[in-house]
Amino acid sequence: MAAAAGVSVATASRALNDTGRMTDETRERVKQVAAELGFRPNAMARGLLSKRSFTIGLLTNDTYGRFTLPVMAGISEALVDRGVSVFLCAIEDDATLAKVHVDAMLDKQVDGIIASGKRVDRRLPVDLSKAPVPVVYAFTDGPDDSVTFVSDDAQGSREAVEWLAGCGRKRIVHITGPESFASVHVRAEAYRAVVGEQAEIYYGKWTEAWGHEAVARLWDGAAIPPDGIFCGNDQIARGVVDALRERGVTVPGDVSVVGFDNWEIVAAATRPPLTTVDMNLRALGREAGLTVLALAEGERVEPGIRRLPCQLVVRQSCGGSAPT
Amino acid sequence: MAAAAGVSVATASRALNDTGRMTDETRERVKQVAAELGFRPNAMARGLLSKRSFTIGLLTNDTYGRFTLPVMAGISEALVDRGVSVFLCAIEDDATLAKVHVDAMLDKQVDGIIASGKRVDRRLPVDLSKAPVPVVYAFTDGPDDSVTFVSDDAQGSREAVEWLAGCGRKRIVHITGPESFASVHVRAEAYRAVVGEQAEIYYGKWTEAWGHEAVARLWDGAAIPPDGIFCGNDQIARGVVDALRERGVTVPGDVSVVGFDNWEIVAAATRPPLTTVDMNLRALGREAGLTVLALAEGERVEPGIRRLPCQLVVRQSCGGSAPT
Repeated sequence: MAAAAGVSVATASRALNDTGRMTDETRERVKQVAAELGFRPNAMARGLLSKRSFTIGLLTNDTYGRFTLPVMAGISEALVDRGVSVFLCAIEDDATLAKVHVDAMLDKQVDGIIASGKRVDRRLPVDLSKAPVPVVYAFTDGPDDSVTFVSDDAQGSREAVEWLAGCGRKRIVHITGPESFASVHVRAEAYRAVVGEQAEIYYGKWTEAWGHEAVARLWDGAAIPPDGIFCGNDQIARGVVDALRERGVTVPGDVSVVGFDNWEIVAAATRPPLTTVDMNLRALGREAGLTVLALAEGERVEPGIRRLPCQLVVRQSCGGSAPT
Repeated sequence: MAAAAGVSVATASRALNDTGRMTDETRERVKQVAAELGFRPNAMARGLLSKRSFTIGLLTNDTYGRFTLPVMAGISEALVDRGVSVFLCAIEDDATLAKVHVDAMLDKQVDGIIASGKRVDRRLPVDLSKAPVPVVYAFTDGPDDSVTFVSDDAQGSREAVEWLAGCGRKRIVHITGPESFASVHVRAEAYRAVVGEQAEIYYGKWTEAWGHEAVARLWDGAAIPPDGIFCGNDQIARGVVDALRERGVTVPGDVSVVGFDNWEIVAAATRPPLTTVDMNLRALGREAGLTVLALAEGERVEPGIRRLPCQLVVRQSCGGSAPT
């Protein structure tokens, strides 16, 4: 590169780094030749000196991306104007392969790592506690002394059930996912705390088919069917709404339905579109990004679990209108 | 690290690199201390010498991940047992921000870059033609002399329409997305080539709502409604199937429906589940990964567009059974 510009290596280096004494013309020529050749100052060598690489690694086992991609968008959003890029590396549940990827990330001297996943009650199959860079956990379980960000599902669920009650619903049931999920219990307990002794919880799968089955059980049984349904996720809610329509039960006329996740592809396509709880994963990603950067810059951050607020997104499946 | 192990820096380095002369005991002690401290040999310094970083960068503007995540899974699958990791960096459509991320990726001295996207007829907002590492394009438009992998939508569409004809369907229509997409034209032309002069193509949106609307138009009109429908994507197909059920038209009894994408969350939840065209994006990712690695290792690869075969996934929306 230096040769192409007709200067010494040292001069070329100074020109590109805007240091040293030379004519503006020389500096411009060097920069132009560098640009033409696609030459990049050797970032690895720079990294050795400056100890900052301006990249954050994001590890996840959520290969479907449902939860991790909004988190990633939030991290990027928070860091891009500081010139920091986010590199996502997907790890499967195989610990040996996971270690290969973590090592690759550390080899790249990322400034910090954010671990994420598809369940808040599971850990990634890799131990990051001895990593030589700061690690923050977002939407996955972290070790005791870590900084961990999760959504406040209890608050979100409470708001959803209070919204149903505010629509005048008297008999509100909860149709949710498998009991093996911690989030199922958190959401169910928040529901129970609002409706009290009348609580009726139906555990099943995270699927539309389970929504259909639960409606059949509730409407074909001996008891008076509910007039409000809080669902553990949007897929269940969609199954519930479709099943009710096919029985001639109107939503939200006869029954109000709330989902959880605000997964656009499901929530917005439901007829009527779903009122649902958004976990604000993008905001969660922003916080995680700013925090890992603060740690990388040597700031002290209290360890512990931060529960960030969810938000009820009001569409048409409940009746009522958006809070003012 | 060297001090903690009670040896010089040079000895520590030789121990970790399995070079130099020392007792096995010393070498083991150094390695053990290094492991305890979470010390990693300086990969940046190693990179300067070996010129291989064992990482591939994946750039995409598909922030929803619908297309890129299966491609990424395929790349990882092909490369992980060669010790190569894939780092995904999401770029928005802002060219300035995109350049920041590309520069970060090049700074990390990736061995190669795979560019991907959400449309095969659009380019990423960044010029990679002067990148100092090999670049391969997968599910996005690449420059003329590039190596580009896309799915063979024409072949996939042809098989879908031939499958409908093979089910005995006589009047097959095509309900698809906006005319501004190249893939809409490729799929429509393949459809037309099979059904000939009878071709009826309805352009609209990529949504369930458009599926409902198209069914209303076809069934409320004066003409005899179709008995076979090839849809441009799974969301349209789901809308079509739901709309037909609500009219009392049975699928696949009265009408056979085929989708496109095999987007599990939509195709499998449709009642009945959709027969649909899978673009095999995972296989496409595998090919792209192996190709960029071959280029990085100095092999010659012919430039040009490779169209990889799609696969018809047979479920219940068509009648008929899987090919034997």
